Amino acid sequence: MKRYLLILFITLIGGSLKAQRVPTLNSPEVHPDNKVTFRYFSRTAENVMLSGEFLEKPASMSKDTSGVWSVTVGPVKPDVYPYSFTVDNVQLADPNNTYIFANERFKRSIVDIPGSKPLIHSLQNVPHGKIDYRYYKSTALDTLRRALVYTPPGFDINGKTKYPVLYLVHGGSDTEETWTKVGRANLIADNLIASGKMVPMIIVMPYGNVRPRPMADFTKDVVSQLVPFIEANYPVLKDRQHRAIAGFSVGGGQTLNIGLTNTETFAYVCSYAPYTATEEFRNNFANWSPDSGLMNSRLKLFTISVGTDDFLYESVKQNISMFKEKGLDLKTYIVPGGHTWMNCKLYLATTLQEIFK
Amino acid sequence: MKRYLLILFITLIGGSLKAQRVPTLNSPEVHPDNKVTFRYFSRTAENVMLSGEFLEKPASMSKDTSGVWSVTVGPVKPDVYPYSFTVDNVQLADPNNTYIFANERFKRSIVDIPGSKPLIHSLQNVPHGKIDYRYYKSTALDTLRRALVYTPPGFDINGKTKYPVLYLVHGGSDTEETWTKVGRANLIADNLIASGKMVPMIIVMPYGNVRPRPMADFTKDVVSQLVPFIEANYPVLKDRQHRAIAGFSVGGGQTLNIGLTNTETFAYVCSYAPYTATEEFRNNFANWSPDSGLMNSRLKLFTISVGTDDFLYESVKQNISMFKEKGLDLKTYIVPGGHTWMNCKLYLATTLQEIFK
Repeated sequence: MKRYLLILFITLIGGSLKAQRVPTLNSPEVHPDNKVTFRYFSRTAENVMLSGEFLEKPASMSKDTSGVWSVTVGPVKPDVYPYSFTVDNVQLADPNNTYIFANERFKRSIVDIPGSKPLIHSLQNVPHGKIDYRYYKSTALDTLRRALVYTPPGFDINGKTKYPVLYLVHGGSDTEETWTKVGRANLIADNLIASGKMVPMIIVMPYGNVRPRPMADFTKDVVSQLVPFIEANYPVLKDRQHRAIAGFSVGGGQTLNIGLTNTETFAYVCSYAPYTATEEFRNNFANWSPDSGLMNSRLKLFTISVGTDDFLYESVKQNISMFKEKGLDLKTYIVPGGHTWMNCKLYLATTLQEIFK
Repeated sequence: MKRYLLILFITLIGGSLKAQRVPTLNSPEVHPDNKVTFRYFSRTAENVMLSGEFLEKPASMSKDTSGVWSVTVGPVKPDVYPYSFTVDNVQLADPNNTYIFANERFKRSIVDIPGSKPLIHSLQNVPHGKIDYRYYKSTALDTLRRALVYTPPGFDINGKTKYPVLYLVHGGSDTEETWTKVGRANLIADNLIASGKMVPMIIVMPYGNVRPRPMADFTKDVVSQLVPFIEANYPVLKDRQHRAIAGFSVGGGQTLNIGLTNTETFAYVCSYAPYTATEEFRNNFANWSPDSGLMNSRLKLFTISVGTDDFLYESVKQNISMFKEKGLDLKTYIVPGGHTWMNCKLYLATTLQEIFK
């Protein structure tokens, strides 16, 4: 009996291994009422689920006679959301969607629900900056490293205008592309510049992962390699009052480490939902006795943002208390929402309107 | 009995749907001897296969007691190859590999086997150009369109140097990122410029898919929108002798359509393994009677490249005959290999050394 079941099982599974000719599907299809239909093709899958940051829990998809699995959800609040499919226990990005979450550990897709009015991250008919993909030599890390550099509309590398610079760090397991591909940092800046709400600036998005080296080597890389590289290659203002650092999650922790221990380099430190359970953070802040007067005179702006549903909320609150107890002037943004790039975009949009002013 | 089997089956499948905590794996791991180990984690999968353009046929992966599936293949000839896993009939990109094949229809990963000597596409310690990600307004298509623009090392937007421009089109279902993410066009150019083998030039990589519009609208977009946009925003030489067009597969067909019907705009037309079973190609060339003397005097270089194992080889040979019968001076590159980006990189490297000379 057991052997019979096993053979049947292998036959069923084995039969399903034949290559399938996969049709092109319209997925995701965003409807005018903000409902969204997701589609996946498989004649042989037993179970297909949709997971997405717009859902409380995964939604079952159902199969039509042609092998197309689909589900329609929503209406969904207009925003940009990550999602993925789980096909018989295998998690994967939507094969029909070009937009991928830039990440080293998982493959998820991105759906943009535009809504009826433009949002802060929407691609609008305004002047657009551009993003430079480039390499810089890091003698600190003995390697070529990647960085993305946003330059604002009208940027002229040899013009008279010198720009301030924001260094913007991604989250854990993200890449140097995550702030633009998921966080839409370039479009947020385009829109805020067009409406006169932010100072035109250069935004530098490095790759924050230096493994297997210790995390503190990233701090060295930013301060001793990346900043000089940018200042040698772009028309920028080269003083602390025109340098800011910000980052999300692991990058929010890196922001605190880099910014607060290098106030001679950075006058603006903006941390979004920081993850701080790291050796570098303990080394820097566990027994920290800053000259709070000096720190406050140097820091033109020090902010920490977090959502009340963020899994790091309690940890972030403890860090906020710690920095306040040390006497630092710290502005906090406690908002609804979780540890998501939806929230992260709002943290950035807020920061961009406050720095260099 | 049947009901019992069904329940058992559902129980087995259902049990496998519980979320798995996925460890970080080193995949792909390229060994010094050019063997490569691929890894995938699943405690519940029944069958995991590796497919890759370095394999004759898919390779079975085997599971260790911790749920890590792996296979070591090779030695593999040094190059950059696409690959994917098939997990119980579900094809997916390697979750542990950041490098993704930019494509609208499938999700595959990229493995780089560097070998002991630098290859034409290797990241080397030479001066690097950069890639601008930008938007341009297309009144022809009534939309904002994306393009990548490679500028060479030492590029100065306001300098005295004016550059020639290569317009480079991706394959079917690829995106504007495929020429850099898979084809390494930027690194190939960096290396050829460093060794003095090519004229420093700007390389413009548009998004060639204009669906649901007819394909001929892309020709309009390139000639009437993209070329003027580049010439208004970059220091370039604005005559036909300093404009080239090249492309692969569907983009190779688009190259023939765009280039040969616009010789007043382009003097260099280089087509790689062109796919030409399109209405636009039939309209342009089925009953074509070119003034071959005029064409040959205008075309400084007209090339078609293809591999003898390319599934389009016969079709490309027919087109080569057709263009030669019409009296055109056509240089052909018939080489080993298939319809792959490995071949495509070589086609580009050859072209870059011939144009604008």
